[in-house]
Amino acid sequence: MTDSRVADWWGTAVSRIEPNRVELRGTPIQDLIGSVGFGAMIWLMLRGERPTDQQTALLEAALVAGVDHGPHAPSIAVARMAATCGVGLNNAMASAINTLGDSHGGAGQECVALLDEIRRREDAGEPLPAATDGVIAEWRGRGVRYLPGFGHRFHSRDPRRDPLLGLVDKAVAEGVVPGHHLRAALAVETALNRGRSSPVPMNIDGATAVIYAELGFPAPLARGLFVLSRSVGILAHAWEEIGQGRRNKGPIPPAILPTYLG
Amino acid sequence: MTDSRVADWWGTAVSRIEPNRVELRGTPIQDLIGSVGFGAMIWLMLRGERPTDQQTALLEAALVAGVDHGPHAPSIAVARMAATCGVGLNNAMASAINTLGDSHGGAGQECVALLDEIRRREDAGEPLPAATDGVIAEWRGRGVRYLPGFGHRFHSRDPRRDPLLGLVDKAVAEGVVPGHHLRAALAVETALNRGRSSPVPMNIDGATAVIYAELGFPAPLARGLFVLSRSVGILAHAWEEIGQGRRNKGPIPPAILPTYLG
Amino acid sequence: MTDSRVADWWGTAVSRIEPNRVELRGTPIQDLIGSVGFGAMIWLMLRGERPTDQQTALLEAALVAGVDHGPHAPSIAVARMAATCGVGLNNAMASAINTLGDSHGGAGQECVALLDEIRRREDAGEPLPAATDGVIAEWRGRGVRYLPGFGHRFHSRDPRRDPLLGLVDKAVAEGVVPGHHLRAALAVETALNRGRSSPVPMNIDGATAVIYAELGFPAPLARGLFVLSRSVGILAHAWEEIGQGRRNKGPIPPAILPTYLG
Amino acid sequence: MTDSRVADWWGTAVSRIEPNRVELRGTPIQDLIGSVGFGAMIWLMLRGERPTDQQTALLEAALVAGVDHGPHAPSIAVARMAATCGVGLNNAMASAINTLGDSHGGAGQECVALLDEIRRREDAGEPLPAATDGVIAEWRGRGVRYLPGFGHRFHSRDPRRDPLLGLVDKAVAEGVVPGHHLRAALAVETALNRGRSSPVPMNIDGATAVIYAELGFPAPLARGLFVLSRSVGILAHAWEEIGQGRRNKGPIPPAILPTYLG
Repeated sequence: MTDSRVADWWGTAVSRIEPNRVELRGTPIQDLIGSVGFGAMIWLMLRGERPTDQQTALLEAALVAGVDHGPHAPSIAVARMAATCGVGLNNAMASAINTLGDSHGGAGQECVALLDEIRRREDAGEPLPAATDGVIAEWRGRGVRYLPGFGHRFHSRDPRRDPLLGLVDKAVAEGVVPGHHLRAALAVETALNRGRSSPVPMNIDGATAVIYAELGFPAPLARGLFVLSRSVGILAHAWEEIGQGRRNKGPIPPAILPTYLG
Repeated sequence: MTDSRVADWWGTAVSRIEPNRVELRGTPIQDLIGSVGFGAMIWLMLRGERPTDQQTALLEAALVAGVDHGPHAPSIAVARMAATCGVGLNNAMASAINTLGDSHGGAGQECVALLDEIRRREDAGEPLPAATDGVIAEWRGRGVRYLPGFGHRFHSRDPRRDPLLGLVDKAVAEGVVPGHHLRAALAVETALNRGRSSPVPMNIDGATAVIYAELGFPAPLARGLFVLSRSVGILAHAWEEIGQGRRNKGPIPPAILPTYLG
Repeated sequence: MTDSRVADWWGTAVSRIEPNRVELRGTPIQDLIGSVGFGAMIWLMLRGERPTDQQTALLEAALVAGVDHGPHAPSIAVARMAATCGVGLNNAMASAINTLGDSHGGAGQECVALLDEIRRREDAGEPLPAATDGVIAEWRGRGVRYLPGFGHRFHSRDPRRDPLLGLVDKAVAEGVVPGHHLRAALAVETALNRGRSSPVPMNIDGATAVIYAELGFPAPLARGLFVLSRSVGILAHAWEEIGQGRRNKGPIPPAILPTYLG
Repeated sequence: MTDSRVADWWGTAVSRIEPNRVELRGTPIQDLIGSVGFGAMIWLMLRGERPTDQQTALLEAALVAGVDHGPHAPSIAVARMAATCGVGLNNAMASAINTLGDSHGGAGQECVALLDEIRRREDAGEPLPAATDGVIAEWRGRGVRYLPGFGHRFHSRDPRRDPLLGLVDKAVAEGVVPGHHLRAALAVETALNRGRSSPVPMNIDGATAVIYAELGFPAPLARGLFVLSRSVGILAHAWEEIGQGRRNKGPIPPAILPTYLG
């Protein structure tokens, strides 16, 4: 007999497992396999209900956009180095995913929080430009130098911004999402660019934050969703590295090592 | 100027990043966002080419099937416990993914290897039943007690088997996949059940291994794909746990703790 | 030839490696092996200079005190579960160490920060009791319910408190450490217990925080040192679990599983 | 009341925790704090009994020798990169420790296994040189190109070899350890160097493997002990990196990045 205290401690609304039965979010698994795509399954697992096809398409666009940004990103470099150390592919992925912290994987989460603050001021009656300036001033006052989701140290204009925002525009026009967070993000962009010769456009974290927030995901899940997305690139790079056969790969090629550390 | 030795050391065919340009597997990111779903993107990143819609559907069915098997699985329990310890969501996910090792996340990989061995014997001219018996005998001889992908300690018949194999059947009929690995897996099932009153049917690892192998993924990627799949459940459980507000959750409810450790 | 930008990027004062030469903190490794104990080596690596024997003894006492608190702690439970999943011992340890976050492994670090704040008020001329009350009020005002380093959900009096503080007392008497953080911690204890029937004594995190702070370690290293300490217990438990031969151990014994998840 | 099945599932001989009581390996914690050094505590936790001072000194020498080999080692590079990504110090350490896999952290473990095989042949009556040649031939026959514990891609003579083996020699002379594994390791070295102009001397993994094996640790603990040792360097490097204030550090300095990835 089960101890009810144990059952409470490990109770969950996510899944229910009985002999010969697996229910996820209340639906038997056999009714999901073949009927629900992977993006919709992610939504269902995180929110407990199924998305529409249009919601799914928007979510998947954001997931596609974030899969990879090359081996200079710490997460990808760590994945490739770890993959050469004699650990499982899952371990190499874990070492990498583990680096998607506040500054590497958390910008989307923080950007959703930023946009939510602007939205709350709007809801309290402030016009959007004033709400935006007010929130930016607050963040600056807290010592935040780079607003999360805006500007990129490598791209003067992030090539992922326009296609993502174009999809949000379309979704707003079709009534799929309300558009409030999109407008807030554009207002931040406008405010940041005021009086600057080199603009600070929205980056991948900002554009995906708009999508996640428009779709109703709370801020912390912006990081969770980014982890799911970037895991694809992490796996692809770890796998490629394994195929190259290096052993205990360091950050610097051995050819220039002797003097480098000397 | 770039040192070419550095460029070689970190060179990759997965992605190419230049200022204001992100190419993944040779395609500019703006041509992928909104055009390619998440499942197809996973395929493209791992293999360098785009799948057909039918291939994508089969891949996504396998990814959907593996997302979760409840908090008794070590990976999910670890995710939930870690999420209460004051770490980021990505860290909780990493601790969990890290446990998807040879025995927890590697059965699919080993099952692909098992089926590949049978296939090689077939290619060398052995009839399928003989090839199957031969390979099973070899694995038994190496001390393998439970063949990877068959039998389940909890389900006498894994509810994910039939819908997954049904989709493979259909894909074979439509010429999407050749069906060799499916037949090999069914031959193993037949051989295992011969003379037994309680059958040892294919489990989730076996059924997804069939799909991954039929789609042409090498064995190690069966584990990589399972990691992507199970990460969804890991995230959903970690997120639910955070919402419950526990702190430093142990495996056993504190109510029964004092005497338990005494 | 080495690129100097690469050398700068990876430059370090911790170690210098040349062919047939390993220098750690400026000392050739052959002058350390056999001459320096493990505790002194930890000090040297973190601070760049060698400790006295008395400093080493105090540091090692704190490291000894924190190695383990049983399998109900998430870190230990995670280590044991991960060790059954077919991963390397280092992977099981990593999954566990990864859970030593803000609430599980960070209390020592926060306690050092708390004591530092009191010390700064004292330095500015406030008497210790007023400084203590002021800082406590500030932390309470920020919503902190449990002051880090005080009280224990399991022990009404943590058995590690007295022996650790006794060693600090002795070290103060011998002039090894100044004693300011000890006095601040005792002042917090006094303030917390004022007017309470059940006292809230210092716990392991508080007592070790006193030692680390008295020895001059900055707050974040209190967490780093705790990781080194708890890693010993994590390894011991993972190793014991491996010896027991379970496979994919969940948090709940399978004997009570069928109905638990049903 | 405790469920005995739960108590069995989480039962351990490592620690026993009751209210106001912490026992490690049967000894109350208050009898260990201040009486036992950190090295002896590591031994006690792993083996259940206390070492002699001479055993402790030998163990600590091995732990000291392995703490660091510079930022080109993947583990150290990963620690430094992870530390810049906005994660906790424990998370940066975990990502790094996670890379100490079969090829990066497992050579000591494999070397103990190698020496154990030679010892077993000796016990069965083979003379040491024949036993050594036989085992080497077996490993070569299995495709092992580099014997674990011998040779170094960077050092022609590992500077940690002589001081470590000198300590073992002394311990053998004093009757602290039997010397069988030392002789086996030297026999391997002799066999490997036979007829070679450039010798392949024992490296850090080999020399520490000799110590761990002489002290009676089973092979897998050679990896566990190396993790404890290298964690010190991992922490020192992560901490130094944090002090340098970089954000999302990649493997290559940004100054040479634009063309590198182009």
